[in-house]
Amino acid sequence: MITPKVPPSTPRAGSVGRVETRYLDLPGPVRLDCGRTLHPVRVAYETYGTLSPARDNVILVCHALSGDAHAAGLSTAPVPDSTRDGFGAEDRDGTAGKGLGWWDGMIGPGKAFDTDRFFVVSTNLLGGCRGTTGPSSTDPATGEPYGSDFPVITVADMVRTERAFLSVLGIERLAAVAGGSLGGMQALQWAVLFPDQVDSIVVIASTHALHPQGVAWNAIARNAIMDDPAWQGGDYYGTGRAPLAGMGVARMVGHVTYLSAPALDDRFGRRLQFADDVRYTITEPEFEIESYLRHQADSFVKRFDPNTYLFTSRALTYFDLARQHGGGSLERALEGVAARTLLIAFSSDWLYPPSASKEVEDALRALGKPVEFQVIEAPYGHDCFLLEEARQTPIIRRFLAEGGAGG
Amino acid sequence: MITPKVPPSTPRAGSVGRVETRYLDLPGPVRLDCGRTLHPVRVAYETYGTLSPARDNVILVCHALSGDAHAAGLSTAPVPDSTRDGFGAEDRDGTAGKGLGWWDGMIGPGKAFDTDRFFVVSTNLLGGCRGTTGPSSTDPATGEPYGSDFPVITVADMVRTERAFLSVLGIERLAAVAGGSLGGMQALQWAVLFPDQVDSIVVIASTHALHPQGVAWNAIARNAIMDDPAWQGGDYYGTGRAPLAGMGVARMVGHVTYLSAPALDDRFGRRLQFADDVRYTITEPEFEIESYLRHQADSFVKRFDPNTYLFTSRALTYFDLARQHGGGSLERALEGVAARTLLIAFSSDWLYPPSASKEVEDALRALGKPVEFQVIEAPYGHDCFLLEEARQTPIIRRFLAEGGAGG
Repeated sequence: MITPKVPPSTPRAGSVGRVETRYLDLPGPVRLDCGRTLHPVRVAYETYGTLSPARDNVILVCHALSGDAHAAGLSTAPVPDSTRDGFGAEDRDGTAGKGLGWWDGMIGPGKAFDTDRFFVVSTNLLGGCRGTTGPSSTDPATGEPYGSDFPVITVADMVRTERAFLSVLGIERLAAVAGGSLGGMQALQWAVLFPDQVDSIVVIASTHALHPQGVAWNAIARNAIMDDPAWQGGDYYGTGRAPLAGMGVARMVGHVTYLSAPALDDRFGRRLQFADDVRYTITEPEFEIESYLRHQADSFVKRFDPNTYLFTSRALTYFDLARQHGGGSLERALEGVAARTLLIAFSSDWLYPPSASKEVEDALRALGKPVEFQVIEAPYGHDCFLLEEARQTPIIRRFLAEGGAGG
Repeated sequence: MITPKVPPSTPRAGSVGRVETRYLDLPGPVRLDCGRTLHPVRVAYETYGTLSPARDNVILVCHALSGDAHAAGLSTAPVPDSTRDGFGAEDRDGTAGKGLGWWDGMIGPGKAFDTDRFFVVSTNLLGGCRGTTGPSSTDPATGEPYGSDFPVITVADMVRTERAFLSVLGIERLAAVAGGSLGGMQALQWAVLFPDQVDSIVVIASTHALHPQGVAWNAIARNAIMDDPAWQGGDYYGTGRAPLAGMGVARMVGHVTYLSAPALDDRFGRRLQFADDVRYTITEPEFEIESYLRHQADSFVKRFDPNTYLFTSRALTYFDLARQHGGGSLERALEGVAARTLLIAFSSDWLYPPSASKEVEDALRALGKPVEFQVIEAPYGHDCFLLEEARQTPIIRRFLAEGGAGG
């Protein structure tokens, strides 16, 4: 056995080093698709690398359902925002935002999103529970958390918030917008909403519209949360109860859809928890996979707000470029896109399958737009976008280098 | 539009006609794998066709998780058993056991299981809620429903109960045992436990051991039920509350796994419930598939006992012929099988995929046992075993004819 020379919590070579999440209050309201406006809006963010004098080397990184602004580097401070008190801080483990960022393998000196060249910005999305305004934030009209009165948001609303936030930083153009899953939806939405402000997009394990089975999984997850009596119609903040059981079930559903069946075979098989026989129990886990799912659920509910899960899940099922921007035609929706597009998908991803990215590729190609589509053969399902860093890196580095920015 | 000449509730040509579920109390206790015994045990059953004087034309049909003894023909009487009062009869719709049987397209004169030749017997499985003893039945030790004290049962326990039941009817040999999904597990278990009493088995959309992803789905479903506060540790009978919300979520999970993603695309797509735009709601269904799932859940909870779901789901995850009978080797587990085996699987079934049946085929073939394996190309997923009657029929008829019984 080889003894590692550095403890696991030390940043790897190429790390952006120690970071801290910061917070910025937008000067104006955000207009939402539902017709309402939201004000004030606070945005949690981190930045890595150095902004060029010409401000032309900015990459915006967008996170998926359960992520946050802490995408890279090592953070030692927990997120100190108001949302941490809203739904029972005693249930949370205090590690939110701590440790290595969720995409640390992809962001840093010499990495896919190379901070020697680019100024990388990462924000917590609108509706979040990690510093950006969301359902657990205080509604200025009542002085109480929004809860059930938080507006139903869309991916476009998230993008408009990111746009307003970057303007405060004095950033008007983006060399790239990048993200996986819901983050990839935001990248696509950026290219459609602000075509003259985005040089390129990197859309990983994502889609222009979630397929019906994915819509079903999300509906089941939301039902599990809303059916939990502790949800209380969404107004559980400050009651000492939160729909953690329901969100645990939601997380289990999500978790299985993020992995592939062969990956579960490889990792768990049908191995039992104890010895070589069952114990004849309904209430206790018997199989390793049962125990693993319960553990995943338990740790997730300590760090995530169920209402944020609901609103974010709803936003990603609504997302549908063809319906929203093309009168049903994806090609028409993408007509105005000016960004160079890189699509990456993973062969075993059945939640955001390669076929969905292929549809985006086909539409862009039919329009004569610059597009590249890479399918990576990998066995871990949707989670590949977080795991397969080494194989994504050369593809993304080359794609970004061809853009010429950040040189 | 063509006006049908017969109302939809009229039996089709080839029907076994009007039937009624009957009930039989076993004379002795059933010994269970967990070490406990169960007594008394009542079995709900139906029969179709005529028992031959030699008693050599009997086919036992075994149902899946949510089925019952009413497999064929038209029933007008609701199931009048004691279980119907246990968990809130006010929540049930009184249609249990009514209408056409769940496999009516497969059982009848000239059908796959031809009642002109065979005497077909169908029972509600042990642990059920449709007439056979289960968790909602009265525990003689307390005079109350078993609830949480019902023993954790196995597929082998179900089969031993069926064996004891058939003995009361004077039936010692079976021309065939047939079933889909959990019903197919029972057929396999029959061939292993009682090799000299089974001439053939018909195992449809089933497996010798559920794969880890299937174990995960079942664990999620059970967690959804047990996390519902109305479950009350399993002792909800007579309290006026039952974990119907949790079982609704469980049913939704099950339902999506029973269908294929392409089938959901075809049937629902991303069609919205109302007009051509979303209504910005978290609590109401927006997509047709969301509404469909909720409807499926609502109607299921009116007719099914959550505890039966738990115990049956646990039994089907435990089922593992190699572990239970072969010291880890499927081939060794099947060494004693004497029955001719027909395996049928469906190309789009990802819950009980063809690969699982192939493993059974390979093991039997390696042992030199007579086995036939047919994969039917069909798009509807696991539910094909209930839907693809026309294509299963000639395969099963030929297979049974080759057996020579029931002539």
